[in-house]
Amino acid sequence: MKLIAFDADDTLWVNEPNYVNVKDKLCELLSHHIDKKTLSHRFYDAQIRNLRLFGYGAKSFILSMIETAIELTDGRITGHEIQQIIDVGRQLLDFPIDVLDGIPDVLDTLSQQFDLMVLTKGDLFDQESKIARSGLAHYFKHVEIVSEKNEQAYRGILKRYNVQPSEFVMIGNSLKSDILPVVHIGGRAIHIPYSVTWEHERVSEEHLVGKSFTTLESARELIDLLTKMTTTDVL
Amino acid sequence: MKLIAFDADDTLWVNEPNYVNVKDKLCELLSHHIDKKTLSHRFYDAQIRNLRLFGYGAKSFILSMIETAIELTDGRITGHEIQQIIDVGRQLLDFPIDVLDGIPDVLDTLSQQFDLMVLTKGDLFDQESKIARSGLAHYFKHVEIVSEKNEQAYRGILKRYNVQPSEFVMIGNSLKSDILPVVHIGGRAIHIPYSVTWEHERVSEEHLVGKSFTTLESARELIDLLTKMTTTDVL
Repeated sequence: MKLIAFDADDTLWVNEPNYVNVKDKLCELLSHHIDKKTLSHRFYDAQIRNLRLFGYGAKSFILSMIETAIELTDGRITGHEIQQIIDVGRQLLDFPIDVLDGIPDVLDTLSQQFDLMVLTKGDLFDQESKIARSGLAHYFKHVEIVSEKNEQAYRGILKRYNVQPSEFVMIGNSLKSDILPVVHIGGRAIHIPYSVTWEHERVSEEHLVGKSFTTLESARELIDLLTKMTTTDVL
Repeated sequence: MKLIAFDADDTLWVNEPNYVNVKDKLCELLSHHIDKKTLSHRFYDAQIRNLRLFGYGAKSFILSMIETAIELTDGRITGHEIQQIIDVGRQLLDFPIDVLDGIPDVLDTLSQQFDLMVLTKGDLFDQESKIARSGLAHYFKHVEIVSEKNEQAYRGILKRYNVQPSEFVMIGNSLKSDILPVVHIGGRAIHIPYSVTWEHERVSEEHLVGKSFTTLESARELIDLLTKMTTTDVL
């Protein structure tokens, strides 16, 4: 194994619950205008509609919150209320990083044997800031932040680092971004599900048919599995 | 010379005038609330204040416009007006790319002799989209988008590509981001000023004392200069 890459959000640290929390606060702020269910639906629509122009990340999330609030109040929302939305959203850019259980131990052990990479998608500035705040940066030889984790992105990175797919392992919580594209290009993937998954990252079970990857309950199991993988060369 | 890197915005294509244009439209939209000069000052303050959390780029610019509008109207601005601001700002994410004079010819010639890189700072998604829209991507072997172009960032990139500072040339319009940090780490820099420079990128002349770099009027002069640099190895 030449390169082991870790997804960041909800693989190394808690992320999605912060977004859920901010969305709940948006619902509270707008509760006299609109019910929570309608707001959730329309907000998700705005996020997906804006993905093409804004990409992922906190700033995109804040802009979609503002647009949804304007749309659902027929423009009657005030500047004051929009400032409250921005202030709530701003928390997404500097919340304290809550590293997931077992991660520092696992990284400490693995980094002595392997080249480790953080491989995450999203907003460059936002993700760099989280990596710095996490205190985990020193375990990683490489950091790659991409705008989308698809087969093309993985191929590009492996080419740049001169790594064959068979020498590459990706570890992450998202079947859509961390597991399936890696399996499709002939790499190995280890899925560590997280309790909360953003709707956009969910994958229906039929997409998993014929795909081979390992699912673990906790990062703590990684050391055993990776040791086995390097000695037997079989996942 | 092992690696020649080009800044993107206002070096390869027109960028800053699009931002000036959007700022002018913001002034028009708010003209019944506030005069242009006050708005410009306060908007710049908001941009700088937000840099630490939001970074550079179009989304950050839009959020700062919204905050300034709320602040300067004491929160009285309506949701409708804020939607207009977002719609004006959205243009920054898909304006047609106006490639600067001579750039395709120069890239065509240089890419046959050298490894070329786009090295730009800003919002990952935004910059990738501009590179794709420019039609210039095929001239570049590498693309690096960083959150800040300082000495540390340049050192990191040269290390990653195994290039010595003396084997590296940076070409760009910003003394602050493209020229001074490269000169400071022992690389070579070619300055091609652009007619419009964002206030934040300006450098006072005292910072240029004792620094050695070449200034050109147009990218068209690059081929001659780079040929001379490689044959004489002197800038």
